Amino acid sequence: MPAYAHRMDGITGSAIRELFKLLAKGDIISFGGGNPSASSFPVEDVRRITDDLLATKAEQLLQYGATEGYAPLRAAISEHMLKPKGVVADESCILPTTGSIQGMDLICRIFIDRGDRVLVEAPTFLGVLQTLNIAGAELVSVPSDDEGVVTDELEELIKKHRPKLFYCIPTFQNPSGKTLGLERRKAIARLATKYDMIVAEDDPYCDLRYRGEALPPIKSFDESGHVILLNSFSKIISPGIRVGSAYSTPEIIRKMTIAKQGVDTHTPNLTQAIAAEFLNRGLLPVQLKRICPEYGARLDAMLNAMDAYFPEECSFTRPEGGLFVWGECKGLDMLKLVSRATEEKKIAYIPGVHFYSHPEGREGTFRLNFSGTAFENIDTGIRKMGELMKEALAEK
Amino acid sequence: MPAYAHRMDGITGSAIRELFKLLAKGDIISFGGGNPSASSFPVEDVRRITDDLLATKAEQLLQYGATEGYAPLRAAISEHMLKPKGVVADESCILPTTGSIQGMDLICRIFIDRGDRVLVEAPTFLGVLQTLNIAGAELVSVPSDDEGVVTDELEELIKKHRPKLFYCIPTFQNPSGKTLGLERRKAIARLATKYDMIVAEDDPYCDLRYRGEALPPIKSFDESGHVILLNSFSKIISPGIRVGSAYSTPEIIRKMTIAKQGVDTHTPNLTQAIAAEFLNRGLLPVQLKRICPEYGARLDAMLNAMDAYFPEECSFTRPEGGLFVWGECKGLDMLKLVSRATEEKKIAYIPGVHFYSHPEGREGTFRLNFSGTAFENIDTGIRKMGELMKEALAEK
Repeated sequence: MPAYAHRMDGITGSAIRELFKLLAKGDIISFGGGNPSASSFPVEDVRRITDDLLATKAEQLLQYGATEGYAPLRAAISEHMLKPKGVVADESCILPTTGSIQGMDLICRIFIDRGDRVLVEAPTFLGVLQTLNIAGAELVSVPSDDEGVVTDELEELIKKHRPKLFYCIPTFQNPSGKTLGLERRKAIARLATKYDMIVAEDDPYCDLRYRGEALPPIKSFDESGHVILLNSFSKIISPGIRVGSAYSTPEIIRKMTIAKQGVDTHTPNLTQAIAAEFLNRGLLPVQLKRICPEYGARLDAMLNAMDAYFPEECSFTRPEGGLFVWGECKGLDMLKLVSRATEEKKIAYIPGVHFYSHPEGREGTFRLNFSGTAFENIDTGIRKMGELMKEALAEK
Repeated sequence: MPAYAHRMDGITGSAIRELFKLLAKGDIISFGGGNPSASSFPVEDVRRITDDLLATKAEQLLQYGATEGYAPLRAAISEHMLKPKGVVADESCILPTTGSIQGMDLICRIFIDRGDRVLVEAPTFLGVLQTLNIAGAELVSVPSDDEGVVTDELEELIKKHRPKLFYCIPTFQNPSGKTLGLERRKAIARLATKYDMIVAEDDPYCDLRYRGEALPPIKSFDESGHVILLNSFSKIISPGIRVGSAYSTPEIIRKMTIAKQGVDTHTPNLTQAIAAEFLNRGLLPVQLKRICPEYGARLDAMLNAMDAYFPEECSFTRPEGGLFVWGECKGLDMLKLVSRATEEKKIAYIPGVHFYSHPEGREGTFRLNFSGTAFENIDTGIRKMGELMKEALAEK
């Protein structure tokens, strides 16, 4: 066989997606994955919407569409997703994407040459780490505290590395669950302008807030067009429909659109139209009112169980929303413990090392998802995970 | 703004997709585009299938799926699309893609480094030219005669350039309408093995045959695993659902799957499931029996009108299927004539130069699509195009 391209060197596939396949088999209480709850899906709404669409617009939806996206979806995103967050977006500056990961892939395609520096949070979403690695980016990790990325350190790293791009998840971050404070959001927008750096603001969890006050996106403070805001329907309607969006300047959106032509021509019309109708029928607020209390209860159950069962060597975040709690147990190697967790304790989590571009010293970290696990299993699963960590600590 | 990546240098976007937007406006008889006829879409079948799917499998379809694809679709492609063509495919070697263009994009990602040589037919599908250009491939054109690519010349070019990849559309080629002969198909499979070269066999039109005998794909003669067969539902069910597939060895499919993780995670479950159900309910043969006579009549109408109205300086292909007729009018620049065609004659075609990696000397070529134009408009439109060419020739 001919040699593979260099961009594939060392790329081994997503650890999470491998774990998914493992978990499909057994009777395991899984805090792995990042799946929304099956009960969260607005099945009847989607069914009614889809049938209405195919009854009235089938010929349009089954035909080729514009790479720029399904026009009613662009308008609906502007009106129902961005405007309520203080972002006034011309719909021509919104590009529907095949999941928000495609937004990141298109950003990499248009901006990143092999060897370009890119700043990422430490830890950050492992799917995007893979996208960035395939793009050939040189990754530099930015440290965080309880309020997210430390912007003073961010500025030092920008000065030192002159990155083209900073990728961040400002709200209920994946994997840490942390939320970037208001002043830091403003500071990041300023730094992007000052140092001519693109910020890819990936905000799929922002609507999943169970307590506390909503914060405006970094994009709302962007005066120079350096911030690209990525949104997703995966966590609020369905990940299976694979619809997200990018919002930026006309020039950047145009460039991303050209790149998308050669990638998938356009996002499927039917799934775009389902998302548009869902927004236009006013169903998003209804959906959020239904799922947020459910998810909030699971989060509380998880945090309470962690307080009760986890060893004192273990620290963890207390998110106000999203899908994840992040923890660290000093002295343990949570990657090594994964097989024992699934085999002996019948539980699963994601070892934190997967979320770092430079995982050295992060062996004790782990990510727990609470949305994909039935409420009544959370206490049991966390208790077993606590036992596992206590046993492993005792064996040292 | 930071500099764009070098891969975007000189990439200006698809000429066809720009033309689409133009045509959306006027009362133009268009032979541009490559759209299936709106009347070809199996609207009621898709509606019924979709409702059945959402009534019975909504929670699965709305959830994240495996990057490897929706299992029933992989099985259905093996059984209903490949087996009838003499290709015995283990379903684990089939990767559903978001349109078959994604298959080409993934092939480029895993195989093509900047500067790698890639052979393409001259002319070839312009969407893939863009994908290959963004991948940084150095393109080398392979000449064709009436039976498609000339395999002796292909071998000489392989020896000279040592390409990693040869991209070809063997059946009712886009844009030429030509079909690669049986012996040449076998020869290409042999050459791929002999010179350790990947063949990307893009075969979206093979089921749209209106006369003559079906030919097996190059893949059916592949003994060394060098051929990757791309199929698509765009021309036989719907392009709007964006579902295609790649079939190759376990190793190559695994690599493409890993690359796909960071691109769109997976193709939407719902559109994959629609395609799977369509096949499993035995609807593809029914659909082909309905649309092939319709398209065949349009093709005949076009060829008859071309015989009647086109100047003698104009030669053209006589395809046995597909969506396109290819022509050349010596002495004219069909790119320059496009605006006059749309403004004065109210007709549209695609200038052939867009389909060449090296368009010099190809100014007289053009592509005509007959599937997207109502039968009753074909004669009128071709007559006007004949007038245009005759007038332009007289003015010289």
